[in-house]
Amino acid sequence: MFAVTYIITVFEDETIGEKVEWICLEQSVELPEDVVPDGLLQKITGKPELIEARDAYSWKVVIKWPVENAGASAIQFLNILFGNISLRRGIKIVHVEWDALAHIVTGPQFGIQGIRERLGISDRALSCGVLKPMGSSPQKLAEQAFELAMGGIDIIKDDHGLANQNYAPFKARVEAVTAALSKAERKKGVRAAYFPNITDAPITMQENFGFAHGCGADGVMILPHLCGFESMRLISVQPEKLPIIAHPAYSGMFVTDNTHGYSPEFLYGELTRAFGADFTIYPNTGGRFSFSLETCMAINDAAQSKASPFKTVMSMPGGGVNRKSIPTWVHQYGKDIAFLLGASLARHPQGLRKGAEEVRQMLEKGA
Amino acid sequence: MFAVTYIITVFEDETIGEKVEWICLEQSVELPEDVVPDGLLQKITGKPELIEARDAYSWKVVIKWPVENAGASAIQFLNILFGNISLRRGIKIVHVEWDALAHIVTGPQFGIQGIRERLGISDRALSCGVLKPMGSSPQKLAEQAFELAMGGIDIIKDDHGLANQNYAPFKARVEAVTAALSKAERKKGVRAAYFPNITDAPITMQENFGFAHGCGADGVMILPHLCGFESMRLISVQPEKLPIIAHPAYSGMFVTDNTHGYSPEFLYGELTRAFGADFTIYPNTGGRFSFSLETCMAINDAAQSKASPFKTVMSMPGGGVNRKSIPTWVHQYGKDIAFLLGASLARHPQGLRKGAEEVRQMLEKGA
Repeated sequence: MFAVTYIITVFEDETIGEKVEWICLEQSVELPEDVVPDGLLQKITGKPELIEARDAYSWKVVIKWPVENAGASAIQFLNILFGNISLRRGIKIVHVEWDALAHIVTGPQFGIQGIRERLGISDRALSCGVLKPMGSSPQKLAEQAFELAMGGIDIIKDDHGLANQNYAPFKARVEAVTAALSKAERKKGVRAAYFPNITDAPITMQENFGFAHGCGADGVMILPHLCGFESMRLISVQPEKLPIIAHPAYSGMFVTDNTHGYSPEFLYGELTRAFGADFTIYPNTGGRFSFSLETCMAINDAAQSKASPFKTVMSMPGGGVNRKSIPTWVHQYGKDIAFLLGASLARHPQGLRKGAEEVRQMLEKGA
Repeated sequence: MFAVTYIITVFEDETIGEKVEWICLEQSVELPEDVVPDGLLQKITGKPELIEARDAYSWKVVIKWPVENAGASAIQFLNILFGNISLRRGIKIVHVEWDALAHIVTGPQFGIQGIRERLGISDRALSCGVLKPMGSSPQKLAEQAFELAMGGIDIIKDDHGLANQNYAPFKARVEAVTAALSKAERKKGVRAAYFPNITDAPITMQENFGFAHGCGADGVMILPHLCGFESMRLISVQPEKLPIIAHPAYSGMFVTDNTHGYSPEFLYGELTRAFGADFTIYPNTGGRFSFSLETCMAINDAAQSKASPFKTVMSMPGGGVNRKSIPTWVHQYGKDIAFLLGASLARHPQGLRKGAEEVRQMLEKGA
């Protein structure tokens, strides 16, 4: 059995008892109790373990599910988690106990320790610059990568809108950027890591991974909400492994309604971790999206919780992080964090390299 | 260029002008205007075509996007449609003009006319029975299929929770059910069509499709919100083709918030159609979910709109359709509809076959 924790809100015409019983049936036999064949009710349906009032309208509920209902399929696990119940309001998933699921979902292959070993950075927070915008040529993007690397940025990733457009086709881009980073490495003696966006249709994504790996890319970025979580997990477990940055595009509808969907810490912390991401991007508080500081800290906690059977995930707050605010955020979040810096570096009056240098100095000072 | 229509709600600290401009930048260059390189602003960003007040808080907005921003990727199209903006509240997508996108998304391969030709049913509404529940053996499910077929049901599909569990592994289930339907065909002279659930990880799903096709399955069911829309589209366009039923599991969070996400008619009508479904399941009004009659009719309209460049889609309302109410629904929705009947047939006092017979009689009488 695996346990799922829900915050359930009860509307006018509902009762908590009916709603919990309905979830137990809907996410398993999909039949009213009176037509479930003998023996299957006990064997297949969810079992409520806790129903605890939080206030007049909401309850904390824990339901246990037979692991066998998922077969060996991570997709069927997601179906049990939030398939049909996604269509009824007032159901927020906040936690899963993963131990019984570790044969289906596999967690990060590197984790924070593995990332630090690969990058050779043991004790400070990391920086991640972004190649942008869409519409730029491979050469322009490669020049950006060179400047960022010469300035001492740790990681460089594609903007999440860089796919395989004619502006900068995937292969031409990856070749140009990896070549630029090798050039910077020869000049500077240190290598910035490159994470191209490989997201595409399943087979194409595998091909993209292979191409990026062959060019010497140091990791990959994936948009799991667009290609499917299972496609990300399959990339993570293939024999040739690279660390994965998970990007939250197309995930907002899970978290924008406070009473329905997933809590941000469950989605960007627990679930993204379970499906193999080594880095999890989320919109930092105070940027152009609207998470609270408390939510961001909860995501970091879920990404690193020792209660999980999986390796830890490095949080990558973005969406409008100002380079000057880095010391504040290191103080707040600790050192196991990578800062995503886009417009803030692009806007530096003396250019990307200088911006990256300043960020590096802050990070080395302990920020 | 392709045009997207949004209903945008403006909250306390927002203005419509700022929000529209932000969308135009966020879904393209992902940079504030002042740091977009010369020339790219005009070439890459979205162009507002209409900003029309609906009431004090909401506007109808049309934005046109360069097709080139999607490259040839249906996934990148979804990214432009609702990638990062999914994370900011108050943005509801209600319509896309698909003509300029027909090289990326391909629409149904059969459509209503193709379905009718394959089934040999020219002028009445269709019935679809469901094999359930999870936990039943392949033999039990095959017996259900036989009874439904002998009663004259048109289509039989797996419950959406039937995956590849040990209870009834995919291959054993498909073999048993197709054999039972061949037996019924020999006895009765008419074949009920079987649509097994092939949803799984990408390569497994392709294998499942091939196995089902080889066993003589008449179509397949796919859960596109779980495997990814592009995985469904790729199944639809492969050389050996079968009609596809799209199931709405894991989609609710797009439609439960009235001010954010997709309108139900956009999601279950337009988008599901664009990505290759021949049937679209949605929760019927009055059932165990909460769509209004108006919403259901709007989904049917979007699935069959002549303004689209794609073939039409047959709606499949489900989620608690009572077999006795079929005449009402045919009157309401017309004949280009397939009724999904689960518990209502399971509950018939004289069994599935008798239930299917009654449904068939209603449908043949013009219901």
